[in-house]
Amino acid sequence: MTAAVLVNGSPAPVVSIHDRGLAFGDGVFRTLLVRAGRPLNWPCQYRRLVHDCLALALPPPGEHPLLAEIAAVAPGDATVKVMVTRGAGPRGYAIASGQPATRIVAAHPLPDYPEALAREGIRARWCELVLGEQPRLAGVKSLNRLENVFARSEWNDPQIREGLLCDAAATPDLSRCGVAGAQRERILDLARAAGVSCEVRDIGVEELARADEVFLTNSLMGVWPVKQLGDRAWTQFPVAGRFQERIAHDDT
Amino acid sequence: MTAAVLVNGSPAPVVSIHDRGLAFGDGVFRTLLVRAGRPLNWPCQYRRLVHDCLALALPPPGEHPLLAEIAAVAPGDATVKVMVTRGAGPRGYAIASGQPATRIVAAHPLPDYPEALAREGIRARWCELVLGEQPRLAGVKSLNRLENVFARSEWNDPQIREGLLCDAAATPDLSRCGVAGAQRERILDLARAAGVSCEVRDIGVEELARADEVFLTNSLMGVWPVKQLGDRAWTQFPVAGRFQERIAHDDT
Repeated sequence: MTAAVLVNGSPAPVVSIHDRGLAFGDGVFRTLLVRAGRPLNWPCQYRRLVHDCLALALPPPGEHPLLAEIAAVAPGDATVKVMVTRGAGPRGYAIASGQPATRIVAAHPLPDYPEALAREGIRARWCELVLGEQPRLAGVKSLNRLENVFARSEWNDPQIREGLLCDAAATPDLSRCGVAGAQRERILDLARAAGVSCEVRDIGVEELARADEVFLTNSLMGVWPVKQLGDRAWTQFPVAGRFQERIAHDDT
Repeated sequence: MTAAVLVNGSPAPVVSIHDRGLAFGDGVFRTLLVRAGRPLNWPCQYRRLVHDCLALALPPPGEHPLLAEIAAVAPGDATVKVMVTRGAGPRGYAIASGQPATRIVAAHPLPDYPEALAREGIRARWCELVLGEQPRLAGVKSLNRLENVFARSEWNDPQIREGLLCDAAATPDLSRCGVAGAQRERILDLARAAGVSCEVRDIGVEELARADEVFLTNSLMGVWPVKQLGDRAWTQFPVAGRFQERIAHDDT
């Protein structure tokens, strides 16, 4: 039988209560879509994981041992969450030298998103929570995610699939807050390779409402066009459709 | 033998890797100084714990069962850390209804602070990290503490005992960021009861340098006068001394 979880290579699905990932959110994570034991969009995912580990001065896991652990917990199709924390240490914020990191690789079921969402678009909402600005954490998928928890608790309507977060000014360019997703990075790469002009910048609520098309992206949803956001509705998603095709091609 | 850790009443010193305290820092904590099984400054500590749980919509632990667990892990003198998290749940930010919280009560050794620090004062420094502003978390001792980890890694000099954190403007009044400590609350209560006029407000670097006296406080240090901060030195600590006496009296 294959373990669905490996913690530093061991199948016990627990961490010490002294782990700094728990004590301080002192760690990072990625969420991977795995097909037949192979994580999709792996080069971006691994690059982001290394980047985020370095942002916290954590030793990044080696690529090939990590791929082996992913295949071990998810030999078929699954969602796999990878966490790297600063490991168990003494009480207090100071980092003890030579403390080994904790590496967690855990398989979860695939999400059961209806196929229609990618075709017909989703409903989204503007969240009321205003993101704080912390350039040291901007773009990093750290384990400090209470803002996202608060934002996701703003609504219960299952028809609303996603919430958009803004800082005080706009949906931000990731220099002050937010998370740089691996799927987002892949789409930017694909767009630039195809000669599509891309700008990464703050976008205010009014400007977004004037857009010809809006789509959201992460590793599990792929590309979801937005059909409704606030008062604005969209019905045509040609750009989203093209990226969906490119990603599907890339993943096979 | 007495367990040094209780996790939901059980002595195994671990949590599930699916615990949201680990995944998102979705929880709160307090650090208690315990003498002969009795946590000092308990009314303030418990009040803050309940406040912080409610800020995250977590069910606060009952006071008397929690006191019993504290005495069980620390029948003598110890530091005890209490954590309350939203417990193990499915992947994703949404909160599953009816998910039981995780309650962690863990004994640690007493800190080995030299007695001279309280008498002669400590060296402190201004941290370079600028606190982000998040009113939803301001004052709450949540498990999202990467800013503190970053700030504490700015220096290694063991002569410097503490770092002062500012937001973009000043060392803040806790409406935008920061943590409302239980010892701080006790000192404010003692001061007001003694007719000492207190203001809680932003204080900039220049104003602090002009102060007649500065002291820091938390549950473990008690009250530490500051003898050096940046270029400024202090040698007399009459106000800190008075609060040290009041606290010592209160704790016996």
